[in-house]
Amino acid sequence: MYRKELKVLDCTIRDGGLMNKWQFSKEFVKDVYTACVDAGIDYMEIGYISSEDQFSRTEFGAWKFCSEKDVREIVGENKTNTKISVLADIGRINYGDIRPKKESVLDMFRIACYEYQIDKAIELAHHVMDKGYEATINLMAVSTVTDRRLDEVLADVAKSRVKIFYLVDSFGSMYSEDIDHLMKKYQEALPGITIGFHGHNNLQLAFANTIECIIRGANMLDATLLGMGRGAGNCTTELLVSFLKNPKYKLRPLLWAIEKHVRPLQKQIDWGYFMPYMISGAMNDHPKSALKWMDSDRKEEYVAYFDQVRDSRQELE
Amino acid sequence: MYRKELKVLDCTIRDGGLMNKWQFSKEFVKDVYTACVDAGIDYMEIGYISSEDQFSRTEFGAWKFCSEKDVREIVGENKTNTKISVLADIGRINYGDIRPKKESVLDMFRIACYEYQIDKAIELAHHVMDKGYEATINLMAVSTVTDRRLDEVLADVAKSRVKIFYLVDSFGSMYSEDIDHLMKKYQEALPGITIGFHGHNNLQLAFANTIECIIRGANMLDATLLGMGRGAGNCTTELLVSFLKNPKYKLRPLLWAIEKHVRPLQKQIDWGYFMPYMISGAMNDHPKSALKWMDSDRKEEYVAYFDQVRDSRQELE
Repeated sequence: MYRKELKVLDCTIRDGGLMNKWQFSKEFVKDVYTACVDAGIDYMEIGYISSEDQFSRTEFGAWKFCSEKDVREIVGENKTNTKISVLADIGRINYGDIRPKKESVLDMFRIACYEYQIDKAIELAHHVMDKGYEATINLMAVSTVTDRRLDEVLADVAKSRVKIFYLVDSFGSMYSEDIDHLMKKYQEALPGITIGFHGHNNLQLAFANTIECIIRGANMLDATLLGMGRGAGNCTTELLVSFLKNPKYKLRPLLWAIEKHVRPLQKQIDWGYFMPYMISGAMNDHPKSALKWMDSDRKEEYVAYFDQVRDSRQELE
Repeated sequence: MYRKELKVLDCTIRDGGLMNKWQFSKEFVKDVYTACVDAGIDYMEIGYISSEDQFSRTEFGAWKFCSEKDVREIVGENKTNTKISVLADIGRINYGDIRPKKESVLDMFRIACYEYQIDKAIELAHHVMDKGYEATINLMAVSTVTDRRLDEVLADVAKSRVKIFYLVDSFGSMYSEDIDHLMKKYQEALPGITIGFHGHNNLQLAFANTIECIIRGANMLDATLLGMGRGAGNCTTELLVSFLKNPKYKLRPLLWAIEKHVRPLQKQIDWGYFMPYMISGAMNDHPKSALKWMDSDRKEEYVAYFDQVRDSRQELE
């Protein structure tokens, strides 16, 4: 697939950091950055931007906060074609901490919100846009939002100045028919707005759903190296780059970073296709109970996990 | 998806055996059989049927041969709703070894062939059908067959008495657009013939492609527990059963077998999503060079593998 408008966003550090509290070595982050630049990746999401009032640097690594100083240690002035983004959760960022764009190497703020937070998300998006940044809104957990309520949310977004809006499969529960339904709805409600997609791989469908979104017109695509991300992880950057035919994208630099850093880390941290994550995806459930199970000494007890979920939901059998 | 005609074939032992030379314990095979029966799986493929003149029992386990005696040790008289199938490669089976159906607990022979072997495959299919068995032809490596030649092959099949014909993504290289093209072609050329699908997971698309085939009308679907199979492995049986809504299918028995046998084995044998398999899939290449690399002490050297492939093909960069 070649389409000039397509943009790839690598969020290995941001989403992957959910699995290690962003305790990456500087060399890891620097090498992922170098790989993204060399591979022609359009955006690298380097972490969350969060208030230091709310989270401790003792517990969390630098990429939970993304201070200007820490980001510059990695990217310098970032005189490259790869833009730098950060993710903000509603309520976890102080407006006062956001400096004007001309004082920052950050390019884009992505704002993650649940449907009931959409007004706050639009307000924050406008705030960062007024400071000179690009902004996106990433509506999470849409697989649990009714169509009636989703229509209201999309109408609010359509009336805003936001230019990029994300379809997010937070629970990794979507099949292609879900993607088709939502992409149609988003595009009809949001003419002129770029649609992005962020998938999770609980059902081994993150890459397939990304392709389906591309076919349906999405132009911003999230991915991570080796799929590193919370729980089952994400669409992999290396698969996406292999699929896209734009000659600016290169696979080899990504393989270098995977070989040097990401694969060794995968041997220590269990992200990917594991039965508890598969079950939570198939149930359209938040991955938190699966994550807890995988963090316990019962992580290989799949039948017991299934029974626990079934007893609490009585849906699958 | 619910469609009465849909059939699931679990080939964990047959395809998975390519990774361990079919050296499964009897308990492993028996438990997979029990899991298939309890889960409502329509067919269990228990192995290859091969001539003992050509392969040694010293090197290969029982499921390379599938003698009547060995199969009966697992399934007895098989008074269940799960039929038993075996796979035959052209030229590796003696016609004389095939006993009449009434003397066998086998139900179906699947015949794997390359396009240049289609006449032999049809002849063998007719032979086993005349002995009272069901038969399928599984045309391998179709991603390397030209449309003109494929039309000839399909015309030969249409003229035969074969009732089930498989679309096989041998190299794990197909995207949904390839599936759509081939499913359309197969269905137009083969009216009244059931189409099956057997995928490989090099690009993490085996399950997605299986769903795509279902949407396009395929009714026989191959899968393996935890995707166990050669190289990147297959569509997983547990994902397929979670997707299908026919109440006869049950997930729990599959999780039991995965927990007890397949997951422990996966810790010893590297099937699944590994960079060499991803690269061979993206290149539409036979997995043999990736398998060789993964079997060497350089298996984690992804850039070196990429360079070797690129130097020999100069396609990806």
